[in-house]
Amino acid sequence: MTTTSNLTVSSPNIKYTDDYIFSQYEYQETLVDTVDNKLVAKPYSTSLSIRTDRRVGKVGVMLVGWGGNNGSTFTAAVIANREKLTWNTKDGEMDSNWYGSITQASTVRLGIDERGMDVYVAMSQLLPMVDPNDLVIDGWDISPMNLADAMVRAKVIDYDLQQKLRKKMQTMKPRPAIYDPDFIAANQADRALNLIRGTRHEQYLQIRADIKDFRDKNNLDKVIVLWTANTERFCEVTPGVHDTAENLQKALQQNVSEVSPSTIFAMAAVDEGQCKAHGSLIPECLKPVSIVSYNHLGNNDGKNLSAPKQFRSKEITKSNVVDDMVEANRLLYSEGEKPDHVVVIKYVPYVGDSKRAMDEYTSKILLHGTNTIAVHNTCEDSLLATPLILDLLLLAELFTRVSFRRDESEEWSPMHAVLSSLAYLLKAPLVPAGAPVVNALFKQRANIENLLRACLSLPPLHHLQLEHKVPFLMKELRSGAMFESPPKKQKLSHQNGDH
Amino acid sequence: MTTTSNLTVSSPNIKYTDDYIFSQYEYQETLVDTVDNKLVAKPYSTSLSIRTDRRVGKVGVMLVGWGGNNGSTFTAAVIANREKLTWNTKDGEMDSNWYGSITQASTVRLGIDERGMDVYVAMSQLLPMVDPNDLVIDGWDISPMNLADAMVRAKVIDYDLQQKLRKKMQTMKPRPAIYDPDFIAANQADRALNLIRGTRHEQYLQIRADIKDFRDKNNLDKVIVLWTANTERFCEVTPGVHDTAENLQKALQQNVSEVSPSTIFAMAAVDEGQCKAHGSLIPECLKPVSIVSYNHLGNNDGKNLSAPKQFRSKEITKSNVVDDMVEANRLLYSEGEKPDHVVVIKYVPYVGDSKRAMDEYTSKILLHGTNTIAVHNTCEDSLLATPLILDLLLLAELFTRVSFRRDESEEWSPMHAVLSSLAYLLKAPLVPAGAPVVNALFKQRANIENLLRACLSLPPLHHLQLEHKVPFLMKELRSGAMFESPPKKQKLSHQNGDH
Amino acid sequence: MTTTSNLTVSSPNIKYTDDYIFSQYEYQETLVDTVDNKLVAKPYSTSLSIRTDRRVGKVGVMLVGWGGNNGSTFTAAVIANREKLTWNTKDGEMDSNWYGSITQASTVRLGIDERGMDVYVAMSQLLPMVDPNDLVIDGWDISPMNLADAMVRAKVIDYDLQQKLRKKMQTMKPRPAIYDPDFIAANQADRALNLIRGTRHEQYLQIRADIKDFRDKNNLDKVIVLWTANTERFCEVTPGVHDTAENLQKALQQNVSEVSPSTIFAMAAVDEGQCKAHGSLIPECLKPVSIVSYNHLGNNDGKNLSAPKQFRSKEITKSNVVDDMVEANRLLYSEGEKPDHVVVIKYVPYVGDSKRAMDEYTSKILLHGTNTIAVHNTCEDSLLATPLILDLLLLAELFTRVSFRRDESEEWSPMHAVLSSLAYLLKAPLVPAGAPVVNALFKQRANIENLLRACLSLPPLHHLQLEHKVPFLMKELRSGAMFESPPKKQKLSHQNGDH
Amino acid sequence: MTTTSNLTVSSPNIKYTDDYIFSQYEYQETLVDTVDNKLVAKPYSTSLSIRTDRRVGKVGVMLVGWGGNNGSTFTAAVIANREKLTWNTKDGEMDSNWYGSITQASTVRLGIDERGMDVYVAMSQLLPMVDPNDLVIDGWDISPMNLADAMVRAKVIDYDLQQKLRKKMQTMKPRPAIYDPDFIAANQADRALNLIRGTRHEQYLQIRADIKDFRDKNNLDKVIVLWTANTERFCEVTPGVHDTAENLQKALQQNVSEVSPSTIFAMAAVDEGQCKAHGSLIPECLKPVSIVSYNHLGNNDGKNLSAPKQFRSKEITKSNVVDDMVEANRLLYSEGEKPDHVVVIKYVPYVGDSKRAMDEYTSKILLHGTNTIAVHNTCEDSLLATPLILDLLLLAELFTRVSFRRDESEEWSPMHAVLSSLAYLLKAPLVPAGAPVVNALFKQRANIENLLRACLSLPPLHHLQLEHKVPFLMKELRSGAMFESPPKKQKLSHQNGDH
Repeated sequence: MTTTSNLTVSSPNIKYTDDYIFSQYEYQETLVDTVDNKLVAKPYSTSLSIRTDRRVGKVGVMLVGWGGNNGSTFTAAVIANREKLTWNTKDGEMDSNWYGSITQASTVRLGIDERGMDVYVAMSQLLPMVDPNDLVIDGWDISPMNLADAMVRAKVIDYDLQQKLRKKMQTMKPRPAIYDPDFIAANQADRALNLIRGTRHEQYLQIRADIKDFRDKNNLDKVIVLWTANTERFCEVTPGVHDTAENLQKALQQNVSEVSPSTIFAMAAVDEGQCKAHGSLIPECLKPVSIVSYNHLGNNDGKNLSAPKQFRSKEITKSNVVDDMVEANRLLYSEGEKPDHVVVIKYVPYVGDSKRAMDEYTSKILLHGTNTIAVHNTCEDSLLATPLILDLLLLAELFTRVSFRRDESEEWSPMHAVLSSLAYLLKAPLVPAGAPVVNALFKQRANIENLLRACLSLPPLHHLQLEHKVPFLMKELRSGAMFESPPKKQKLSHQNGDH
Repeated sequence: MTTTSNLTVSSPNIKYTDDYIFSQYEYQETLVDTVDNKLVAKPYSTSLSIRTDRRVGKVGVMLVGWGGNNGSTFTAAVIANREKLTWNTKDGEMDSNWYGSITQASTVRLGIDERGMDVYVAMSQLLPMVDPNDLVIDGWDISPMNLADAMVRAKVIDYDLQQKLRKKMQTMKPRPAIYDPDFIAANQADRALNLIRGTRHEQYLQIRADIKDFRDKNNLDKVIVLWTANTERFCEVTPGVHDTAENLQKALQQNVSEVSPSTIFAMAAVDEGQCKAHGSLIPECLKPVSIVSYNHLGNNDGKNLSAPKQFRSKEITKSNVVDDMVEANRLLYSEGEKPDHVVVIKYVPYVGDSKRAMDEYTSKILLHGTNTIAVHNTCEDSLLATPLILDLLLLAELFTRVSFRRDESEEWSPMHAVLSSLAYLLKAPLVPAGAPVVNALFKQRANIENLLRACLSLPPLHHLQLEHKVPFLMKELRSGAMFESPPKKQKLSHQNGDH
Repeated sequence: MTTTSNLTVSSPNIKYTDDYIFSQYEYQETLVDTVDNKLVAKPYSTSLSIRTDRRVGKVGVMLVGWGGNNGSTFTAAVIANREKLTWNTKDGEMDSNWYGSITQASTVRLGIDERGMDVYVAMSQLLPMVDPNDLVIDGWDISPMNLADAMVRAKVIDYDLQQKLRKKMQTMKPRPAIYDPDFIAANQADRALNLIRGTRHEQYLQIRADIKDFRDKNNLDKVIVLWTANTERFCEVTPGVHDTAENLQKALQQNVSEVSPSTIFAMAAVDEGQCKAHGSLIPECLKPVSIVSYNHLGNNDGKNLSAPKQFRSKEITKSNVVDDMVEANRLLYSEGEKPDHVVVIKYVPYVGDSKRAMDEYTSKILLHGTNTIAVHNTCEDSLLATPLILDLLLLAELFTRVSFRRDESEEWSPMHAVLSSLAYLLKAPLVPAGAPVVNALFKQRANIENLLRACLSLPPLHHLQLEHKVPFLMKELRSGAMFESPPKKQKLSHQNGDH
Repeated sequence: MTTTSNLTVSSPNIKYTDDYIFSQYEYQETLVDTVDNKLVAKPYSTSLSIRTDRRVGKVGVMLVGWGGNNGSTFTAAVIANREKLTWNTKDGEMDSNWYGSITQASTVRLGIDERGMDVYVAMSQLLPMVDPNDLVIDGWDISPMNLADAMVRAKVIDYDLQQKLRKKMQTMKPRPAIYDPDFIAANQADRALNLIRGTRHEQYLQIRADIKDFRDKNNLDKVIVLWTANTERFCEVTPGVHDTAENLQKALQQNVSEVSPSTIFAMAAVDEGQCKAHGSLIPECLKPVSIVSYNHLGNNDGKNLSAPKQFRSKEITKSNVVDDMVEANRLLYSEGEKPDHVVVIKYVPYVGDSKRAMDEYTSKILLHGTNTIAVHNTCEDSLLATPLILDLLLLAELFTRVSFRRDESEEWSPMHAVLSSLAYLLKAPLVPAGAPVVNALFKQRANIENLLRACLSLPPLHHLQLEHKVPFLMKELRSGAMFESPPKKQKLSHQNGDH
């Protein structure tokens, strides 16, 4: 299974073979030293080779918490798109789509055309990625409910589409999962009817067996394990237990209680995916003095979060965002000063999966004036989360095929670290969508776009548009001289040798 | 007057002299061709020399519409900060600040330190800029009211601070200005009591004389003319009139009526400033289907905009933003499809300068689900605009000192075009602050940051953080090997040999 | 068809016969005179006899604009409730209801029980009213679309319920209607395909024939004609044309152009219904200084209102509300002073029938403090309007059966005037639901409740609860003495002897 | 000190003497019986005599928690209004007012004039009330801070007005108060520096001595004690302790710990005031399914409420409102069914006294459609509460002068019960202002208005306006016959003899 694309990069720094794309990349950063209270900035550059495997293979995904709102909606969305299903609502006939997915529904600026106009392509065209239609899905859940009934319970998918999906999803039954009442809210107990018994080590072995079984039965090249289950409380990171892989294995075998279900799944999974999402929100030169974020939702995620310990886990995540924001602009905050910050998450069954965020951001502006923004956001939680799950899967899979090295003499080195940072998103419940994360999404997007571009030996986006600002470049652009061959006053970057 | 800074860039590509900073910069872009329905992307690089004059000089600013809310608030803010004034309110003692200013109150990521942690510096430290305290202010207004009374009328500055500023501002009186009832709202007529009479050409000559008078009396090196007056209606761009400088001069002398006051000011001003601000707002992979933006304000800007033609000018500006957003993502919109888009601006005298924006953004998400964000934003219009006016001034002034060339044989070429694009912001009233422009501000910031970095031969920000993702880089970072001298496997940028 | 009820009023002032309920009622008001700049308040009382016909009869309703959102939703709601239909949505199985109807879904305080606790009954129990299930529906529309297709176009009724209603509604076809492009927006022209041609007088005769035809075919006792069509522009009230019934008839025959379609329908209709709704909103002792009401909707009503003249009609209606509020509290406003008041209605097709109201109310409070309320209201326009249409129908029908007189020697006098005031609501589009009308609804409700109570010889509600405040009444209540027979210190009302 | 008014009621049922107003009043209610599952409603009427003392006397007020935001703002408002102070802000010169006060800033409908038009008068004109300018103020506080400093700390009063009030308020020092850490939040401990020591009984005696001292020194006729201090946690109502006055006295002497400070103050106060405020909010024929109320404030009230037990007290109060609403309309809720209801109160220091309420009300409408209202309310807490405190004072004082009896043989009976119900408001912190309480305020207002009217022998307001609905009344109104003397077909109500 090789994904073809309309796009070719033409450059001495890129080489396409049947199996790989080889890219030469100058990674530029700046080292900052402090000498005698003065800053010395030293730009440096590292030449990297990046190799992207073009063979996508057959990919399976196993969801922890398959029967939850995200799990059932993801499954429904994959089938609906694969089968090109349409359905009726009072607003007319609807067709399947992947709106909300960065890989499927967003474009990236590729460069400029000969008139200097921006050219955009779909992100999925940049590099070979799994086609969502080719995904094979399986998973675990502490409830034995089949996926059709789980979809009905989730109240996310329109009724008429439910009817069309029911038959296919009725036969999908989650594998037994790990339930540890110490880590999730007590209100989850009544649905914990589909469990792997035994010690933590026995549970670990069963998960491994499940993965192997899934892979073998479906003849898969890769399996990605995704956490879409309830938020666990924060676990105490204990030296001697959580610090090294060896200690974790030992703890497993000793059935140490502070090893949470998510840790066991993580350890058992050979292939996982990962991503990092957090938000700072207000234009950075204003001074936020009060950030109040009220949220309520009525799905099972809300029910679980309504327990104090699980909420605390979410709260810590959110506090870090404010700390980061303060840290990044010491012009605005004096030592020890911080904005007031309140996060509330409430369980309101009526709203179901239709999460509400009511936020208020207050900033000090010029001469201690005040800017107040109040936001009321109504969003279908699972419909926002599901396309991001797809993105995680596709990017995680892609990143398993990306390798780095510096020398021909070196081994190709994979991108482990990216995977572990992606994992962040899998465990921390998604931040409320909307204004607060716009900025964060921007930085995250820049990260992803520039990484994909690097794999193609394309320079990072800089938004400089000097073609529209520097007179001689403007003139060359207008006269056509800029792209005439051979460009006299330009050289192709890094025009160097073979790979 | 030379601004010193704590920052030095250490690189073979940068050279500091007493008068200049010389930077060698590789400007990288990607040319996209379509061949047989396939895209071919060709990265290329242009070597540029950038020269920044370190001599800031003595800078004067002349505001068109000096007595307006923005003009009087800007003047008050400069004095308050210069004199380090404090004042009392019911919330306690306040001190002067420049919150809201990108140059004065925001930091930029400079690079990383030896532990790989981000290092931020104030934007004003990157390159020598005017100190706001050194600005000399003058201006024109169609009302003869002195600046102290204008400040009282604006109802922006706290009462106790007004008392401390009154004496200084009472002696500031706007020069007579150009009033053309055809271009601004009829409701402005009763304050048009301070006018330059005569033909358009005579008005032009008077403006030039005013600028010369201001420069001579204050012994200024540079004068920047800023438009802070009412929005004019859109003018009909007529071939033979507005297309070339020569035709415009001819039209002036023939007193052609379609030459607006802002055009006359622009022509008369030798030095002006410029910037471009527009907003697209919602994460780009959702599909906005309805964007409704209600605004009301009670200052004179609102009064002028309440006239249909002046509003139309604003409306066109806003429509373009939506068109751009649609253009940038053709995955989401079919040919001819557009989101519903409504912009309303109302004059509500009670709210005065405290502008309200009530916006609703509706997006289609996965499987035609819906995401609705409602925003209520209360912002002190002039307090948000004033620091941006300062930024424009400082950046405009800086950019007059930045030059480009490619060869030693070439002349240094200034950055005219940037100035004209900055002018955009001066004439179009500021977009409503808040969520909608977060994204736009991000891109604009990236533009400014990377331009300043280029002047220092620093590479653009890419948010890649490979030091935290690629194993061998992570290892080198941890071991300290990355920055040990001499780094065996690294080269200083743009000295490309072989790979 | 006689509606029975669980409720009997036992009082010497009420008499039930097979056909009537006779009530003796003391109507108390206060006359205020100004004598030498002093107010003299003279309470007075009028003894009235009120007779309510218990025979409801068979009632037909004819809707002008039957195929519109309100008309088709009303028809669907009557059928769904009559047939007790259920349907499925993603939120589960739904059943039919009349939520939003004052008569069907609200209770009124009837009195107190022996423990002094409030007793509530359904409003529909107070007096015999039409059962919504017994209504026969017909109507006119300028579009010939059948009601099933109209329901689909309206996008109000859930898809699965549409399927169950389709067959019944497909055979319902609106009669041709009157179209006068001078009175409704030009954007309605393309659906004006089902028209009564001829002069205004010929149109009038056709409407009369339609009503007679409907009545005869269905063997109806009463026909109520309701305006649910587009808002017309305000018409110029011309002496000699609109002032008397005779002049109107003459104008009809002379085909005078200022006689609007709604006037022709009103003249042709023998039986019509009526109601008055307007809103003041903020607790009356604060001082509203700015009332800004932004609305957008995407149904045909919004499309029609987007034309300036039709909007002006709505705007005048809304302005009156503010004038009334100012008039009622001259403590807060000096002569000529008024709050700022802005009403905006925009057509945003995407939101369809799901109207949005974004309102901001600003009030001055103690010592010129400020109270700001921002509201974002999402409401299904037709689902809110439809139950009020039912209420109008039921109350209008009921009021045709209510008569007044003072003496046995007098004729019974019907309540014409109430009918004409109800008509107000039929022509003015419904005010946006939510906070602004809470207070208005309260007064309107008090009006309706006390009128129904009067028909039963029940005193008006006063909220005094003296049984919980005056010690000897409290004691009597607790001891049971208050309601023991015969009450020594009490008399039945209006049999006044000495004190 | 006798307050005169412009208003005289002319009726056989009212008699004015130098000292009293005597009113004969028919109090009408309806008794509802259930017989064989049928409701029988029996209207009945009670003849009451009501006597209002016209001698207002010299009134003192003692505030518990004098130095709090409400206490200091109330004191400032009384002085500012008494001295007719003006002050400057950036919005211009401000004058003193009592906006927000029902008695001072609202009008009531008195009746109709001869044209049938409504006549309104200021509520304070109806009956003789204390003039706020004549109030003498004193109080207790656990902090010894003088009132000028307390006003500065409260950050409620504009800075320039603070300057004008400072001298007068500096000499006002709160008397030591009772502090029981078991009843208010631990975070109040650091300001508890001004305390009455000793047993609960000794504290009680000191409070009594304080009241006597205040009365004697100022030669007062009446002292009203008002609770404006922190919300206490709910106390366990224990039989044998809290059930009778005797048991409470015994508990005091035994120093029982469950006797809270507010109870001790209440017992010690001979004269207190009272009022009841609660809110149901949504038009009663919709079906609220989710009521979410998020609040944050930054004053000391918020700090105290941020402790769980004190918050619980507030929460119980709010829950009752929802229970009442469900109880009043059993058409909408089946047995055991309730709306989701969440109340959150958070302490956000930055917002200070400027409380924010962010509420979301979701209702089911016709055919299970949904109506969602989101409200963002910014209100100056103390500026809204202070005028209501004034109203409480004035009404409480007035009600001490109102007496009831039925027979000349009976003793005049005061209105104790009203006073105790007003007390409710003094202890329960004010509900957040805005939409939710509009309806409640309406009922409360009706209660107050109709009580004042009863004292004047005026019938309750019924909103019937039959003069505009019943043809023969309309005719009589137009012809002037309605109010001609002697009215042939009318009789004056209750035209009976002497008092």
